[in-house]
Amino acid sequence: MAATIPFSLIRNSSALISPRLVLPFAKAANHNFSKFILPIQSRRLPFSTGATNNEEAAAKAAALDADKGAPTIFDKIINKEIPSNIVYEDEKVLAFRDINPQAPVHVLVIPKSRDGLTELGKADPRHEEILGQLLYAAKIVAEKEGILDGFRVVINNGASACQSVYHLHLHVLGGRQMKWPPG
Amino acid sequence: MAATIPFSLIRNSSALISPRLVLPFAKAANHNFSKFILPIQSRRLPFSTGATNNEEAAAKAAALDADKGAPTIFDKIINKEIPSNIVYEDEKVLAFRDINPQAPVHVLVIPKSRDGLTELGKADPRHEEILGQLLYAAKIVAEKEGILDGFRVVINNGASACQSVYHLHLHVLGGRQMKWPPG
Repeated sequence: MAATIPFSLIRNSSALISPRLVLPFAKAANHNFSKFILPIQSRRLPFSTGATNNEEAAAKAAALDADKGAPTIFDKIINKEIPSNIVYEDEKVLAFRDINPQAPVHVLVIPKSRDGLTELGKADPRHEEILGQLLYAAKIVAEKEGILDGFRVVINNGASACQSVYHLHLHVLGGRQMKWPPG
Repeated sequence: MAATIPFSLIRNSSALISPRLVLPFAKAANHNFSKFILPIQSRRLPFSTGATNNEEAAAKAAALDADKGAPTIFDKIINKEIPSNIVYEDEKVLAFRDINPQAPVHVLVIPKSRDGLTELGKADPRHEEILGQLLYAAKIVAEKEGILDGFRVVINNGASACQSVYHLHLHVLGGRQMKWPPG
């Protein structure tokens, strides 16, 4: 049933209902929805638990199936089965807003064809072309969002970097002073 | 005189002498050394000021000259005028350790030819090739450093993202649990 929940609805309702609360509607087997739901042990934690721990827990849960190469929620977004708030799109690349933004602007940039790139660490030399297109698309996104004078691009690889969807994605963040270290 | 201070010496002495303390030896006019020294207003701050503020202040100082296109300390590293701890090198890309590491592994990946890429925001379509090579080099670095299962790539663009050297560079960080948000 999770797949039928509009992505934009989840995002837009975040002020009233946390994306974490869609859990009862999500199939437990849909592990690729794990960015948006909490694993069992985290659900037992009080809601005062910091977002960092939630993200770490979600990433650890997602990593269990990382090498299975199963479709992710991004496939549904690419195929427009789940609506998303698209910022930029071309033949190879899709950019849409993160439903759990960490800055006034927070956009995800992904390749439309995963082509083995569950994570950056899986890149082969043949991927250099799409990697360049993704980074250039991040610049286009920053321009469109009016943050060209100040933005950060982040790629998480693996659980210890908080990767929670195994389809390569670049985070483009801006609109506030970013801190150092970067997480 | 700053240019004659061995980069590795600064790094290796960090346990005893903060890189910030090389200030008396740095020419004030060498603004591209601003990553490693503090602007005047920051020098007045107590040393208890967090690293975040130091980095933000250094980035703001560096941004003043961002559009001048002057050589940066990275040119001296590329030309081996300043020694660095090189992790990976090919015809187009150089990767070396950050002198102020924010994780057990913290490597900078840069294009040997800046070619207008003072920052990612200056990228044109012609830069897609080198952008792809840089991201792929980040993967090679992660592999060489033994952090392929967990690493984060970060690109700072502009003062509000803490960019302090105006020669495009990718941070590759790993060897610890990274937090969320990413700064």
